[in-house]
Amino acid sequence: MSKKLPKRSEDYSAWYNELVKRAGLAENSPVRGCMVIKPYGFAIWEKMQRALDDMFKATGHQNAYFPLFVPKSFLELEEEHAEGFAKECAVVTHYRLKANPDGKGLIVDEDAKLEEELIVRPTSETVIWNTYKGWIQSWRDLPVLVNQWANVVRWEMRTRLFLRTAEFLWQEGHTAHATRQEAIDETEQMLQVYSDFAENWMALPVIQGLKTESERFAGAEETYCIEALMQDGKALQAGTSHFLGQNFSKVFDVKFVSKENKLEYPWATSWGLSTRMMGALVMAHSDDNGLVLPPKLAPIQVVIVPIFRTDEDLKKIKEKIDPIIEEINALGITVKFDDDEKYKPGYKFAEYELKGVPIRLGIGMRDLENGTIEIARRDTLEKESRPIDGIAEYIKDLLDTIQQNIYDKALNFREENTFSVETWEDFKTQIEKGGFVLAHWDGTRETEEKIKQETKATIRCVPLNSIEMAGKCIFSGNDSAKQVVFAKAY
Amino acid sequence: MSKKLPKRSEDYSAWYNELVKRAGLAENSPVRGCMVIKPYGFAIWEKMQRALDDMFKATGHQNAYFPLFVPKSFLELEEEHAEGFAKECAVVTHYRLKANPDGKGLIVDEDAKLEEELIVRPTSETVIWNTYKGWIQSWRDLPVLVNQWANVVRWEMRTRLFLRTAEFLWQEGHTAHATRQEAIDETEQMLQVYSDFAENWMALPVIQGLKTESERFAGAEETYCIEALMQDGKALQAGTSHFLGQNFSKVFDVKFVSKENKLEYPWATSWGLSTRMMGALVMAHSDDNGLVLPPKLAPIQVVIVPIFRTDEDLKKIKEKIDPIIEEINALGITVKFDDDEKYKPGYKFAEYELKGVPIRLGIGMRDLENGTIEIARRDTLEKESRPIDGIAEYIKDLLDTIQQNIYDKALNFREENTFSVETWEDFKTQIEKGGFVLAHWDGTRETEEKIKQETKATIRCVPLNSIEMAGKCIFSGNDSAKQVVFAKAY
Repeated sequence: MSKKLPKRSEDYSAWYNELVKRAGLAENSPVRGCMVIKPYGFAIWEKMQRALDDMFKATGHQNAYFPLFVPKSFLELEEEHAEGFAKECAVVTHYRLKANPDGKGLIVDEDAKLEEELIVRPTSETVIWNTYKGWIQSWRDLPVLVNQWANVVRWEMRTRLFLRTAEFLWQEGHTAHATRQEAIDETEQMLQVYSDFAENWMALPVIQGLKTESERFAGAEETYCIEALMQDGKALQAGTSHFLGQNFSKVFDVKFVSKENKLEYPWATSWGLSTRMMGALVMAHSDDNGLVLPPKLAPIQVVIVPIFRTDEDLKKIKEKIDPIIEEINALGITVKFDDDEKYKPGYKFAEYELKGVPIRLGIGMRDLENGTIEIARRDTLEKESRPIDGIAEYIKDLLDTIQQNIYDKALNFREENTFSVETWEDFKTQIEKGGFVLAHWDGTRETEEKIKQETKATIRCVPLNSIEMAGKCIFSGNDSAKQVVFAKAY
Repeated sequence: MSKKLPKRSEDYSAWYNELVKRAGLAENSPVRGCMVIKPYGFAIWEKMQRALDDMFKATGHQNAYFPLFVPKSFLELEEEHAEGFAKECAVVTHYRLKANPDGKGLIVDEDAKLEEELIVRPTSETVIWNTYKGWIQSWRDLPVLVNQWANVVRWEMRTRLFLRTAEFLWQEGHTAHATRQEAIDETEQMLQVYSDFAENWMALPVIQGLKTESERFAGAEETYCIEALMQDGKALQAGTSHFLGQNFSKVFDVKFVSKENKLEYPWATSWGLSTRMMGALVMAHSDDNGLVLPPKLAPIQVVIVPIFRTDEDLKKIKEKIDPIIEEINALGITVKFDDDEKYKPGYKFAEYELKGVPIRLGIGMRDLENGTIEIARRDTLEKESRPIDGIAEYIKDLLDTIQQNIYDKALNFREENTFSVETWEDFKTQIEKGGFVLAHWDGTRETEEKIKQETKATIRCVPLNSIEMAGKCIFSGNDSAKQVVFAKAY
């Protein structure tokens, strides 16, 4: 066990970076902006994937896989889309290296230049809608409800593990519908799926809303999002669902014969959630001792550390604990018994704390005599000694309690850090302190931009489920129909 | 339902291509050599992934994720590896496009040229061993048992859906060990995992063997493989497991302090299995009517098609069949009830035959009266009428029977198409006809090359479990310790 983590209160950013590395989640690679997702981090991501994938399938979606490369000419077709992604993309120009005739090593073979450059997909609307042209002819072919799990590349200049990386992993859903309303319903349904996932699995309360025009996905008519608040008072966009209108069907000339025998363009949606959520998970719940994982996403939910001096002692502990491990497993709980003699119990305790294992059980010789076991909760850091009888059922309930407690704590934090302001002065003061700031905005791009320039705050969303209540824009004083959510953001 | 498939006997290659497309497995994309894996095909691949992933985890492996890009300088380091992959790789040279100043569209921004080119990974030994340098310091850090599911790119000139594509999906395991023997054991263990997967899940009998030096993975000391025979008498390499010695640990300067307190280089393995296996699955079992899927990998294991004229009829059928569907589901079997009124039963029958659904149940009004149901097996195309009572249990057994039958049929085919020859004349005649040809070989690269030039046959492997039996090389007449397996191959 190495030295302590930086404290959140002293250097939140350093705390995050160190924690991600030391807990074995991810590390930087020698390839600029690309990360290595380490086994423990990947195990959490796999749990996220499984939960989301089940939700996608339950809502009628199927997975498929589309090419990594997008021909440059595809990207050019949708103007806003091109503008949004051309500035930060990895461009493949050649398909061969050759031995360097002047010496050692390899050089690009200029004879192997591609006629048309290929872009490593930053997102797949273009390549997928080009494919849909072959899939959609009649209303009978609709809806198309497809998702893909994939890697994408956006050449970000300033990167940060999970939160902003050149390559990241995500899922991207791409659907096609016969009517505008059906596509809007799908967009909203998938936002709800993301919201349920964030709240029920990640224990992360989120605000559902619409992005303003300037924050919309390049090529979308409307972008829905969920926004979460991190412990440093900054917002993090946690998933987006886009209503694309007929932009991509028109550009790729995808048409279908409707029930009324008319030729029409289908309506599109796309929606994505990425490994960025790993960053949100860390930032929302963890503390100065390390990760705090919601039980539903913890690769190890319960760890049992035996405290023993002799092999004889270990044998006795095992005899007592083996049937209990079986019981715990039978309840569908992932449990690890760590009798590795390379490390001392104290080292192990700190290690599992760092890794955010929700429940730690300790059992030594005195416990055997007394029929007890020590239970330590990661979320509250509370310890108690309990009768070993009935411990499996107790743990099952405790995991639910922990899941709920982590959510409640995050919700409570968000409520304490959400402020409603009416004046420009109050706005500036509050934005500086952090948190979600609800304020009236006149709806213009100009005002939004000026507020951003002066305070670095952006409109995170126009919340979906808030009450309309007229007021005056904090910046321009013009009329406003409802408050929007401002924050500084990741 | 469109026109019939080409016949295997008339044009095996056209049959394969048409089948892959029409059954909804995959199609070509506008990006040269890259395929689109369609939902039905991807559902099969997901089943393969799940089965393999469970086997990897059961043998102690964890998943992780490494960067898509390999710096050119990494590829250069291991000489054979560089030679093997430099000739067919996608090279990223720039990280930005810009508006074309001379007109419409986008052009590469020459100001955004990378200092060092990045290669889209053709395989990840280099980038992973560079990472392992940070992970491995002591014998306590070993073994490292890591796998990744990823896309890779090899710029193949002649491509074919699943069998040879520029981009493909695979898993690549990369392990590090303290001793040579432990690494060899791992290499062999993973070959056994692949073999079990092929035989038990894919119903595909395979020969385990070693590649000859000329067919070895670039950078390996030994390549183990499994080889399967397709219905046209050609071989297909179905998975490889490499013992890499200390090649990569030396090149990336990865060292560990041993228990004896000496500084040593760890020993490496890597092993991979790809979407190519989807091609093997199609080619090994399917027939002129369409796919034949082993039940364990079938996305839909049982389909129920109601035959009805009126809504009243359908309602009666549903009343009878709903509890049976529940029973079937409860047995862990995937069942689809297809009452889609857009298509007629005859169309549906042909469609599910094309898609290889192992069992089709048909139920109409007369069946209701008689308490029967019609069962059609995809593998034998046999139909029978059976009492509807107890049908769920019957189906469960029948799925096992079908899985076994498909395997037996493939094994039988392989046995009938495996030949042992002693003379050069017999060899040439037999190789022309197809199948696995067992023959003595003198062990030299020169002979191997000449045989390949004259007959297009390659040594598929030196089988692991065959009996040593001395003989004379069919080509040179020199001494040989045992027969090796020749074939023309995909």
